[in-house]
Amino acid sequence: MMATKPKLHYPNGRGRMESVRWVLAAAGVEVPSLPIAVSAQISSIPGNHLLFQQVPMVEIDGMKLVQTRSILHYIADKHHLFGKDLKERTLIDMYVEGTLDLLELIIMHPFLKPDDQQKEVVNMAQKAIIRYFPVFEKVLRGHGQRFLVGNQLSLADIILLQTILALEEKIPNILSAFPHLQEFTVKISNIPTIKKFLEPGSKKKPPPDDIYVRTVYNIFMP
Amino acid sequence: MMATKPKLHYPNGRGRMESVRWVLAAAGVEVPSLPIAVSAQISSIPGNHLLFQQVPMVEIDGMKLVQTRSILHYIADKHHLFGKDLKERTLIDMYVEGTLDLLELIIMHPFLKPDDQQKEVVNMAQKAIIRYFPVFEKVLRGHGQRFLVGNQLSLADIILLQTILALEEKIPNILSAFPHLQEFTVKISNIPTIKKFLEPGSKKKPPPDDIYVRTVYNIFMP
Repeated sequence: MMATKPKLHYPNGRGRMESVRWVLAAAGVEVPSLPIAVSAQISSIPGNHLLFQQVPMVEIDGMKLVQTRSILHYIADKHHLFGKDLKERTLIDMYVEGTLDLLELIIMHPFLKPDDQQKEVVNMAQKAIIRYFPVFEKVLRGHGQRFLVGNQLSLADIILLQTILALEEKIPNILSAFPHLQEFTVKISNIPTIKKFLEPGSKKKPPPDDIYVRTVYNIFMP
Repeated sequence: MMATKPKLHYPNGRGRMESVRWVLAAAGVEVPSLPIAVSAQISSIPGNHLLFQQVPMVEIDGMKLVQTRSILHYIADKHHLFGKDLKERTLIDMYVEGTLDLLELIIMHPFLKPDDQQKEVVNMAQKAIIRYFPVFEKVLRGHGQRFLVGNQLSLADIILLQTILALEEKIPNILSAFPHLQEFTVKISNIPTIKKFLEPGSKKKPPPDDIYVRTVYNIFMP
């Protein structure tokens, strides 16, 4: 069977699909989107193709994958982004899980009441600076390598870079106390596949705006 | 190095650690607990042993694992509970992720305001009956096998059984419309390691009570 391009089913914005776009792009896979704009389009995907009646859904290699983490794990496995043994895999998994906890705050932010949004930026900054970034700064300082785990690019590097750049859009100096993470950000951003993804015209989605927020409300809470 | 028993760091109740106890028990591993009773005990675990300053934490095979999913994945990999190839692994991962979404509602339930708890039981029942159980009923009906994936016990079976039994404590007839899940529940419960775990005196924790809820508040919000 000829490998076909994966198809991404999601509204036309970042949300929980953006990590999938990042990992596919880093792996050098072209990422066509089938944006969902209205709830009718969700309903038109037969129920048994959305296993738990939810997107993100990705059609890939003859499967219809749901659940963000499962999609990320599959792509990471397929493209050798999950370490060389179980110990490395477990470290990558832990780093990804921690980073996704932080990223989840960023994903939910545009859906907060306007009054709560500024307060939440402070909360995100604190979480990042106190809980998450010191872990990765210490890892990078400790082994002196370019990548978080096993001296090669993994899912952990990609999701961390995605999260750092999304946070920097809101809090430009968020990395000021973390020199190794600054260097990490520059180096990982310069990996050719990722560099291309960061250039204008790529499949990378812009920060969520009012149109995206309204689209999501229209689809999921019509 | 001699294999030593894993050590589980968590308050003395189910919470996010109970899935770990289930999987270890199903794999036939003895599970000693080091219950955390007061916040001072959390503080006494050096910060770099709680990677993101959070429990559950499991000491196993010379590693200090955090993040529930990462702990479950490691144990499942080690004990051959993650399928025989990437396709089976991905199915197991998706089923586990869906089930954990449902289980999370059960885990958070005792921490809701009393007025909201009854309403949330209705919500959980609906989610289970409309979104999650039909998926697993169909899988079991479709292939006619005892286990969800690959005709052998996997992480997906264990977490699903845990979730079904926890829901049945609140809603005894929750499986009434799902004959294959009823049969699944009986058969998986009778696997010797799991049967032992379900008997009195095992490391299985009782349903959360007021003491557990107060303990958790005292530890995490002192």
